[in-house]
Amino acid sequence: MKHNIIDFDTVALDDQNNALLIIDQTQLPGKKEILSLTNIEDIREAICLLKVRGAPAIGVAAAIGIYLAAKQINTDSYFEFLAEFNKAKKYLASSRPTAVNLFWALERMEEIVLDNPDTKVAEIKELLREEALLIREEDINVCKSIGEYGLSLIKDGDAILTHCNAGSLAAVKYGTALAPIYVGLEQGMKFRVFADETRPLLQGARLTAYELVEHGVDTIVICDNMASQVMKNGWIDAIFVGCDRVAANGDVANKIGTSGVAILAKHYGIPFYVCAPTSTIDMNIQFGNHIPIEERPGEEITEMWYKQRMVHPYALTYNPAFDITDHELITAIVTEYGIVRAPYKENLKELYINHL
Amino acid sequence: MKHNIIDFDTVALDDQNNALLIIDQTQLPGKKEILSLTNIEDIREAICLLKVRGAPAIGVAAAIGIYLAAKQINTDSYFEFLAEFNKAKKYLASSRPTAVNLFWALERMEEIVLDNPDTKVAEIKELLREEALLIREEDINVCKSIGEYGLSLIKDGDAILTHCNAGSLAAVKYGTALAPIYVGLEQGMKFRVFADETRPLLQGARLTAYELVEHGVDTIVICDNMASQVMKNGWIDAIFVGCDRVAANGDVANKIGTSGVAILAKHYGIPFYVCAPTSTIDMNIQFGNHIPIEERPGEEITEMWYKQRMVHPYALTYNPAFDITDHELITAIVTEYGIVRAPYKENLKELYINHL
Repeated sequence: MKHNIIDFDTVALDDQNNALLIIDQTQLPGKKEILSLTNIEDIREAICLLKVRGAPAIGVAAAIGIYLAAKQINTDSYFEFLAEFNKAKKYLASSRPTAVNLFWALERMEEIVLDNPDTKVAEIKELLREEALLIREEDINVCKSIGEYGLSLIKDGDAILTHCNAGSLAAVKYGTALAPIYVGLEQGMKFRVFADETRPLLQGARLTAYELVEHGVDTIVICDNMASQVMKNGWIDAIFVGCDRVAANGDVANKIGTSGVAILAKHYGIPFYVCAPTSTIDMNIQFGNHIPIEERPGEEITEMWYKQRMVHPYALTYNPAFDITDHELITAIVTEYGIVRAPYKENLKELYINHL
Repeated sequence: MKHNIIDFDTVALDDQNNALLIIDQTQLPGKKEILSLTNIEDIREAICLLKVRGAPAIGVAAAIGIYLAAKQINTDSYFEFLAEFNKAKKYLASSRPTAVNLFWALERMEEIVLDNPDTKVAEIKELLREEALLIREEDINVCKSIGEYGLSLIKDGDAILTHCNAGSLAAVKYGTALAPIYVGLEQGMKFRVFADETRPLLQGARLTAYELVEHGVDTIVICDNMASQVMKNGWIDAIFVGCDRVAANGDVANKIGTSGVAILAKHYGIPFYVCAPTSTIDMNIQFGNHIPIEERPGEEITEMWYKQRMVHPYALTYNPAFDITDHELITAIVTEYGIVRAPYKENLKELYINHL
């Protein structure tokens, strides 16, 4: 087993080939394949099919993706460029509805275009490249900062429970929920992590366990429904999860099942921390129940068992990809600017005014 | 889709062939194969491998199994017979540790032998056959009675959530948690059932959805981690689960994940009912945490995804097959003698004194 810290480089720009590089996360842990995507259709499909996933990683992939699409727009006219750019933006934005980083990154890229109406198209393209790389670079720093703040909430040797994957593979590096663990590792600390497998697509079993074990972290995979027993056993010191969108009142959209974990944590008296880059905070949405929740095909539930369908063909399914965790269940939200606690409405607003 | 009530006959005795007949539940829903098991090794293996499962069904299978084993004991000596019978009993009892019905049924069968030291061995064998068939017949009546009492807790059109499979397939007929639904169906009522898929072995997705759909019940399969969102949506009127063992204080051992569902139910203010034949009440165990919890192989978690292993080979697993639900989380325990509510310790004792 390797015990060194590995730079996952989940999302990158390949300038030579004008390509977005991603690890195909649908093939992990069996196979680590790097995909080189050069056209916007393939990039959008990679996001839709979860080949690249995790709110921060989706944001960076969208930024690089829209840059690559913009670079291919064949015109010297600013307005023609703008029109084509907007088409590409809408196309990418329609890939997944819940994680706000997708829209946040595309807006940042759009601002570059809107702010430079008198600049030559070729130069705008270069500015877009710089912005995409800046978004990528910022993501690493933001995640590291979240890791440092998060680390202050736990101590060496603690056992952490996490849901889904909000680690290196969900960002460029460090991740969000797993960042405290990785920053702690760099300081010589050790942690034990219980990873919810996270049905239906098993990001916890497939991705979280993969990256943690590759980093040398003791990792125990459990089915989602075992979290209650693990907490009851007294095995968990803290829970860290990532998030896809935070409403202004502190309600959090994250992978389906997160709200259940939060309710269990409250029942057992275990602190429940949400790690959220400020890019995931959506001050335009007041309450969590206004966040759009993506529903995905029922076949993710019914047909991923062995080779045969595992549910009676006439049974229905309900497959929401996310759920909303009430802010009352959250011990703290860990951002790159510090730790936010209740009252969330007031404290998120203050954070926003001070930093954003 | 068939809309008639079907007699599942999950467990039966085939006198002509001296065989235990079971539906091989590991092959459902793809294939409905009836297994004919004639020797004790195959019967024990069928219980270990969950070809027959569910506390009541295990009890009936064990009763028929020990009868068939006893019938094969080739002696006229009572004491030789008793010694061989005990060996067979221990062998079957070692198959699964949590569901108490296994031991309860084997004890009932043993009492027949112990109560008849002056009876000819051939006649004892016949008494054992009668007792096994009585246990089987009682199971049908007990489940029907649970269904009638359970039905008084809900109303026509309600939406029920259930975990794992505690339906026809977990008993001889009717089941426990699903008995209220089936009894209601017989009276012309309609219900909608949300079935937790119940990882790792998916008894909810594979078995509960199968038998409910075959009975014409609207069934929605969800992943275990979606139960919180479904409750939050306001879609659930009541929760019914079965159980494998009830401690004297009302704590309940049931399929892993049950305690989590109970905590969610309490959080959302939804009644949480445990359907328990009195054969699952173990007055010898004071508290739930004294009930032995079976741990099963980690491969059930890691290797049932597609054809390839879905977890990093160096990741560990924790795979408890059951968990303990605190009696404080339980709205009521539904038995064949009536509905028991808190204080459970006193009321279970009273039930025991009055009926058992």
